[in-house]
Amino acid sequence: METTNATRGRKRLEKEQFFEDYETGTVRRTFGRTITETDFVVHAGHTGDFFPHHMDAEWCATQPFGQRIAHGTMTFAIGVGLTATQINPRAFTYGYERLRFPNPVHIGDTIHTEITIGETALDPKRKGYGKVVEITETKKQDGKTVMYCEHILLVETKEDHA
Amino acid sequence: METTNATRGRKRLEKEQFFEDYETGTVRRTFGRTITETDFVVHAGHTGDFFPHHMDAEWCATQPFGQRIAHGTMTFAIGVGLTATQINPRAFTYGYERLRFPNPVHIGDTIHTEITIGETALDPKRKGYGKVVEITETKKQDGKTVMYCEHILLVETKEDHA
Amino acid sequence: METTNATRGRKRLEKEQFFEDYETGTVRRTFGRTITETDFVVHAGHTGDFFPHHMDAEWCATQPFGQRIAHGTMTFAIGVGLTATQINPRAFTYGYERLRFPNPVHIGDTIHTEITIGETALDPKRKGYGKVVEITETKKQDGKTVMYCEHILLVETKEDHA
Amino acid sequence: METTNATRGRKRLEKEQFFEDYETGTVRRTFGRTITETDFVVHAGHTGDFFPHHMDAEWCATQPFGQRIAHGTMTFAIGVGLTATQINPRAFTYGYERLRFPNPVHIGDTIHTEITIGETALDPKRKGYGKVVEITETKKQDGKTVMYCEHILLVETKEDHA
Amino acid sequence: METTNATRGRKRLEKEQFFEDYETGTVRRTFGRTITETDFVVHAGHTGDFFPHHMDAEWCATQPFGQRIAHGTMTFAIGVGLTATQINPRAFTYGYERLRFPNPVHIGDTIHTEITIGETALDPKRKGYGKVVEITETKKQDGKTVMYCEHILLVETKEDHA
Amino acid sequence: METTNATRGRKRLEKEQFFEDYETGTVRRTFGRTITETDFVVHAGHTGDFFPHHMDAEWCATQPFGQRIAHGTMTFAIGVGLTATQINPRAFTYGYERLRFPNPVHIGDTIHTEITIGETALDPKRKGYGKVVEITETKKQDGKTVMYCEHILLVETKEDHA
Repeated sequence: METTNATRGRKRLEKEQFFEDYETGTVRRTFGRTITETDFVVHAGHTGDFFPHHMDAEWCATQPFGQRIAHGTMTFAIGVGLTATQINPRAFTYGYERLRFPNPVHIGDTIHTEITIGETALDPKRKGYGKVVEITETKKQDGKTVMYCEHILLVETKEDHA
Repeated sequence: METTNATRGRKRLEKEQFFEDYETGTVRRTFGRTITETDFVVHAGHTGDFFPHHMDAEWCATQPFGQRIAHGTMTFAIGVGLTATQINPRAFTYGYERLRFPNPVHIGDTIHTEITIGETALDPKRKGYGKVVEITETKKQDGKTVMYCEHILLVETKEDHA
Repeated sequence: METTNATRGRKRLEKEQFFEDYETGTVRRTFGRTITETDFVVHAGHTGDFFPHHMDAEWCATQPFGQRIAHGTMTFAIGVGLTATQINPRAFTYGYERLRFPNPVHIGDTIHTEITIGETALDPKRKGYGKVVEITETKKQDGKTVMYCEHILLVETKEDHA
Repeated sequence: METTNATRGRKRLEKEQFFEDYETGTVRRTFGRTITETDFVVHAGHTGDFFPHHMDAEWCATQPFGQRIAHGTMTFAIGVGLTATQINPRAFTYGYERLRFPNPVHIGDTIHTEITIGETALDPKRKGYGKVVEITETKKQDGKTVMYCEHILLVETKEDHA
Repeated sequence: METTNATRGRKRLEKEQFFEDYETGTVRRTFGRTITETDFVVHAGHTGDFFPHHMDAEWCATQPFGQRIAHGTMTFAIGVGLTATQINPRAFTYGYERLRFPNPVHIGDTIHTEITIGETALDPKRKGYGKVVEITETKKQDGKTVMYCEHILLVETKEDHA
Repeated sequence: METTNATRGRKRLEKEQFFEDYETGTVRRTFGRTITETDFVVHAGHTGDFFPHHMDAEWCATQPFGQRIAHGTMTFAIGVGLTATQINPRAFTYGYERLRFPNPVHIGDTIHTEITIGETALDPKRKGYGKVVEITETKKQDGKTVMYCEHILLVETKEDHA
């Protein structure tokens, strides 16, 4: 029956995972995306940050870094956005820790993101939920990390751990 | 080992299907997306089509259709774009047939797309490939079809059908 | 008198053509437009299709096609959009047939569209209308066709053909 | 022959006019376009002008003008852009005079532009050219002028006026 | 106290200047911004002006100017937008005079804007206001002026000049 | 002399602050900005995250949160972007800690950001630099915090603290 199939089709885009289903050390890797001059211009226009570090090629050429560098907020937003290919209806974002930008992104760099499941722990303050740390690393074509953060998820527990 | 996991993670975004794996009648349904005034403006700017049917609310109010209607090219592009959540590395697009827009999309309508596998047939002209028809229907919140087309795929065959 | 002139000015942007006014073989050619990396990024963002064929320069360099290729939906939308310079208030779109992408569009290609009036026929099911086929070909700077489709118009007849 | 037709088709988008062809008092009126919240956001992002007069609905509500008002630069750019439907290969822009914004544009207003040919005069300093003033008025749905300027064209003369 | 500090913080973004505070000859210079192909495409899409002078690299290569040239409306909008870093709550725009584009902007040029306070005069028709001319020059990396205009401000007077 | 003035003008956009100049408890407050449906659509397109929580008004209406909610990455990027009005050439970003989204941003909310200087400490590992914590809170019109994070700056010291 079509309706049933359609529902099943839709569910395929979701991947339901309870707290107990997360396994430390599992790695998920996204497709790559080349960061373009367009992304620089769009991000400046989206956020209102037109600082010359991102927008003025002439001035950058006189600086130690030599060329325009991506906004950190863009590297974070696109790095995280690359992972938005499957939804876990049992989880939601609690926050992010230790957000860092160890290396710059320049126009023409191609980035992808790797998520490694880190620490998992029941949340004593939230009965029925556990905390899962997704170590989120965005890397560029030469393997260098351009964004690191720890994404903290709150995930429903399958069983009563009380 | 991480590399192995990462590769496996990436493969999860792909869903390899040979010609023989397509089964007529299977349905896949995408998530929904609300079409906004922004989409109208972006599409006009992207294509250069600023016809008043899409852009002039005052004039539309004097017409039988009463309000701005989406560009057909946008309904097609977003309707097809909604399905871009998994890649089959064994298939590529041959073309589209019978593209129709049975009902208009207005600002605020929410659309999703349903793909039903239609006819499948070996391609006598292309050894090693078969043709698969994906009946592609984009519908809005009231169930009415706003875009219909037949997406023709060429898909590698698993076995030698010579 | 200004009002009259203004109305006449506006009408100049319209080109009223009844079914009988279409002449098979007439060709209309649009201005050219260079397809930029920006268009690739805008189209991905507009449709949600971030497949690496369009977005990942590093991966494309390892593939037979060697570089990013435009979304088919973009070549169609911009190819058709280029023709949106005059409105015929007596015609509307019935649909498109045989949409094909014989050659890829790469960043930096310059495209234009040629419309040739093809078959015209009264529509037995719709009294007062005839069908007109606009053979729509988008070509790039080297003359190769990058998009082909048959745009089917329904056009009011001037006379009663009953 | 196709090439000939195609060339003719292309020429239809151009309207060649020499200095002598401009007639004072002629009026040309564009199609209308509804200015949307999207246009406000796009213009802020395009120019970097995020002043609260254009972007902060809460603050605007406390001011005499009561709601967000369009950037003058946007009203000018879109008002002029609306006229870009035909090219005169014999003319180019010399500049603009007396640019004014007599009434504000708000989100949801529908504007069109009327061009009236004003003064025309041979240019004593540029042999072979004359100056043509295009009085350019952008109006909104209630008839009020939201942008006024005098667009000065330099246009080739057909004959030798020396 | 926080509220007080916050208010003071906000006020720092404003720079209150009465008519009497403007001093002829004062110069203000903005940061630079590299004009990208993205800006060309965004401006065409924002205004609807897709003329080949701005959009068709192949055709431009056959013309005396050799490459795509920025829309004048864009050079004006971005040139003025660069100055939008401080608000004077005592002033508003009356209009612009003598808008000129002495040299073209090409893709990759880096522009900045210099504002020089020109003539200041009490406005006999508007008691309590004076007119201030801001000579606005946008220049590119080689020092050439790409946009010139005179921005006319109406500014409140501090004292009663009646 | 003009050059001198121009340089001075440019410097006004910079606000040089050494480590010793930061004073715990100082508050800086930005202008406000209304978050529009356009921002939602632009952010989805910029990052590729088209999850229905941000994009599907119909589905959201069936959920406890009732309406579309902003991407956390957007609230962060715009919240931080609002502060990009003055450059301190002596400081650069080390990273962000404790990024949280205590309340959702909906279409139509108006946000501003308040930065409070928190802890300051010499950096034992980086001679010549100190760490400054900017407590960054983005709030909406009802005063509720929608984004909280601690922005860690590395700032040059004026004096030798060895």
